[in-house]
Amino acid sequence: MSPTIYDRDLDRNRANHQPLTPLTLLERAAAVFPDRLAIVHGPLRRTYAEFYARSRKLASALARRGVGHGDTVAVIAANTPAMLECHYGVPMCGAVLNTLNTRLDPPALAFMLQHGEAKVLIVDREFSGLMAQVLHAMPTRPYVIDYDDPEYAGPGERIGQAEYEDFIAGGDAAYQRAAPRDEWDAIALNYTSGTTGDPKGVVYHHRGANLLAVGNVVTADMGRHPVYLWTLPMFHCNGWCFPWSISVKAGVHVCLRQVRASTMYDLIAEQGVTHLCGAPIVMQILLNATEAERRPLPHLVRFFTAAAPPPAAVLAAMREAGFEVTHLYGLTETYGPAVVNDWQEEWNALPGDEQAALKSRQGVRYHALEGLDVMDPDTMHPVPADGETMGEVMFRGNVVMKGYLKNPTSTAAAFAGGWFHSGDLGVKHPDGYVQLRDRSKDIIISGGENISSIEVEDALFQHPAVALAAVVARPDEKWGETPCAFVELRPGASATAEELIAWCQGRLARYKCPRTVVFAEIPKTSTGKVQKYALRERAKGL
Amino acid sequence: MSPTIYDRDLDRNRANHQPLTPLTLLERAAAVFPDRLAIVHGPLRRTYAEFYARSRKLASALARRGVGHGDTVAVIAANTPAMLECHYGVPMCGAVLNTLNTRLDPPALAFMLQHGEAKVLIVDREFSGLMAQVLHAMPTRPYVIDYDDPEYAGPGERIGQAEYEDFIAGGDAAYQRAAPRDEWDAIALNYTSGTTGDPKGVVYHHRGANLLAVGNVVTADMGRHPVYLWTLPMFHCNGWCFPWSISVKAGVHVCLRQVRASTMYDLIAEQGVTHLCGAPIVMQILLNATEAERRPLPHLVRFFTAAAPPPAAVLAAMREAGFEVTHLYGLTETYGPAVVNDWQEEWNALPGDEQAALKSRQGVRYHALEGLDVMDPDTMHPVPADGETMGEVMFRGNVVMKGYLKNPTSTAAAFAGGWFHSGDLGVKHPDGYVQLRDRSKDIIISGGENISSIEVEDALFQHPAVALAAVVARPDEKWGETPCAFVELRPGASATAEELIAWCQGRLARYKCPRTVVFAEIPKTSTGKVQKYALRERAKGL
Repeated sequence: MSPTIYDRDLDRNRANHQPLTPLTLLERAAAVFPDRLAIVHGPLRRTYAEFYARSRKLASALARRGVGHGDTVAVIAANTPAMLECHYGVPMCGAVLNTLNTRLDPPALAFMLQHGEAKVLIVDREFSGLMAQVLHAMPTRPYVIDYDDPEYAGPGERIGQAEYEDFIAGGDAAYQRAAPRDEWDAIALNYTSGTTGDPKGVVYHHRGANLLAVGNVVTADMGRHPVYLWTLPMFHCNGWCFPWSISVKAGVHVCLRQVRASTMYDLIAEQGVTHLCGAPIVMQILLNATEAERRPLPHLVRFFTAAAPPPAAVLAAMREAGFEVTHLYGLTETYGPAVVNDWQEEWNALPGDEQAALKSRQGVRYHALEGLDVMDPDTMHPVPADGETMGEVMFRGNVVMKGYLKNPTSTAAAFAGGWFHSGDLGVKHPDGYVQLRDRSKDIIISGGENISSIEVEDALFQHPAVALAAVVARPDEKWGETPCAFVELRPGASATAEELIAWCQGRLARYKCPRTVVFAEIPKTSTGKVQKYALRERAKGL
Repeated sequence: MSPTIYDRDLDRNRANHQPLTPLTLLERAAAVFPDRLAIVHGPLRRTYAEFYARSRKLASALARRGVGHGDTVAVIAANTPAMLECHYGVPMCGAVLNTLNTRLDPPALAFMLQHGEAKVLIVDREFSGLMAQVLHAMPTRPYVIDYDDPEYAGPGERIGQAEYEDFIAGGDAAYQRAAPRDEWDAIALNYTSGTTGDPKGVVYHHRGANLLAVGNVVTADMGRHPVYLWTLPMFHCNGWCFPWSISVKAGVHVCLRQVRASTMYDLIAEQGVTHLCGAPIVMQILLNATEAERRPLPHLVRFFTAAAPPPAAVLAAMREAGFEVTHLYGLTETYGPAVVNDWQEEWNALPGDEQAALKSRQGVRYHALEGLDVMDPDTMHPVPADGETMGEVMFRGNVVMKGYLKNPTSTAAAFAGGWFHSGDLGVKHPDGYVQLRDRSKDIIISGGENISSIEVEDALFQHPAVALAAVVARPDEKWGETPCAFVELRPGASATAEELIAWCQGRLARYKCPRTVVFAEIPKTSTGKVQKYALRERAKGL
């Protein structure tokens, strides 16, 4: 096409085009609300001016050590002020933040440090024993900085060449950030806990981090000065970008080293917490709190959950306890949540179980995600919106990763056909809401019929005695596979295998019902996900 | 610098990079909330599905007429459903929306249509008489579509080749949008009422429109499903981008052809309006309403005002009446408001006049604006934040225009030194809040409309009896400001105030004409420049 009048003399320049980045969000909060409370951690209180100054000192100190554009800075830490400072200070000097999952084993951590080529590693003293093992086995080691959080009183020696407070003391609080040079520049590296093979390094860019950070504010209806409780680990997809979101509205970060019921209730009451996020296990801990641990909530508290659909009983109990639960969905590759179970007002009139069924659906795209669909991955045609036809959940948009670090093959496969292939299988309901049915490997094929393990688990979850259920395929001579359920019962509750199978038969097609029920503790990953792989192995051996 | 590991094999592709555009916002609202109310206009009710379908039909019908990338579609209309549809339908086909100020005179409108090369013109029947005059004088005319709003019962003939409803009836409700190809593509053209010479055509891009639309949602604390009353003309900077903002939270557009007290109170009460915007004149109209016209507000209503600082008495009365007033600031070149008087909670404890003084300051940048400062335009150094030193207010960021259409000289001047020069003079207070002190170009803002004092002076100068004329703003309770002319007559010549006002009325739009004429010697500097500052003081005292 020939250029039009709008294609002439109207180019980008510094005045009208700046790289999108979450770094401007803290700059603004510190400029407009310098004296407002930004961080609470035990008795510690930091204002936005202090938070920003310390982040700049960190950036400056890193830059003085030669850390800059495209260098990796790894950190293993609890949800602490230092972790928040890393989310700003590391990218300010052009480096890429690689937060490490504290629950991983040494070989996995060693792989990540080596693959990510970490130049600096910041270690919370709680994890110094673990990291000493990791570093011991490494041929070349990063520069190690110990972070000795006063709120941590447990064991652990310093293992680094510098101490965090000393390190940033050498930095300049007036440091002018050197990044990003382009909004496509990397800001963070997050390794997926791969079920097979090596972890993959998911790379985020400044543009996406800004857009998802603001997307969270809009999705979570964050008004002025929200108070955010850090129940979600910041090492999970950069805390779903909330370290950046909270700056948008100059809110308060309430840090938390450990998810414990009494501490959570105390902080919610004392700090006036308005929002928190977490896997279903966090809801379980809140709900299983004793009377002595509980405190009245100061107001309606919004809870954002992901990773697994919240069961009806949990939703009802959370509502009773004063929490409004929103179901989110996303992957490491989508900066955390990019899909929300956006609630329709008329659903409030429905019975509780119908509301729970609706809330268990993953939902619709964030406004910051341009495309979400369920497709046949071979033809790339969307499945019909019939709530039945399975396909692969696909994402497209500005809150999808740059790709996998040093892994062009996996990157190309993930982006085949111009969509990000999530690996999650699901359906699209007539109203357009997406619901996960299973990961492809979690589908049970029995007598030629596909069975969604999630659907069977949902039926089991409705049984009052069931605390946790995981269903996998068990090899079967006749049927190929049959559903095998692993079940944890609630404390004090009892149920037999026969009872649970009969329960399912009242709710599911017969072929979908478990043939086997095993009562046992269910193995979970470091991120709290059920290790279906291990269960499949067990089911094979039965 | 040499490429790092993050610079390899991590490129943009369709899966992870999509052009930012506000068009996705309506698509999402229509997909997620198809049956929710989107538009109220008199007895008319339209859902999001209908709003989206009609916008697509408009886009499709335009495309079928050959309208596409970089073509201009002009519209002159009141705040109606068609105007909202234009904000989506026109850019969907790649065209650029040029909304025309209904209060302009024929020569200005003719200039805009010709300079913008409008290919299509949509005319609300209320303005068909005006536009018939405009078109009569044009050598080449756009394709004209009449919009006959059932809510308009006044005079006016159809003047076009097609009627709006017939036109879109020929479009396809399943039309797939053809734009933007790039987020830098133009989305809108807004002419400023230039102070000297011809109006300048400010060009917006899709990226900025998306970012400011979301920025409004965050700044205005829009929760789920806001109800927005259209008291602000959509022809002003595309209604400050609110036609796009409301889609983010699937809110309701309450249309309004005329700003009248009883209608506003009725709609606020009946529709549960949560947000509205407008110049100070709109507040005046609300406050001057009779008891019979008033209705109790359904809840706290948020009012966003710009153009002139709200006076203390008005603020107090608005609070009394149940409105929370937020002061915004921006220019046509910044998509409307990009600066907000972000309120500090501790200010609530101050006396009313101190609060008013604080609220009269223009404030701080939106989170969506990357830079705001007050600078010496020669050195480009920021002025000290002392509340005293004057400088020019400068903007930098993604919500700054692409530039002026077909005007590289003005564009280059506006962007000199990598900042957008607003032409507004102001100071920076110690807390960083910006406050305008004066306008370098002597703009008078009357009823929310910019009036160039120079333009009025030019008209006066044409009168044979006038030797010298200087026009300044005179504070006015109803209009905010009105033009006040100081005139020196030629020796031996005579003229009355009435004569000179009538003279101007023959040459200028009515709202631009002086309301007051003072015959007096005009104070000048030693170099002969008119001391407008002194005249402004005199006008205040009249």
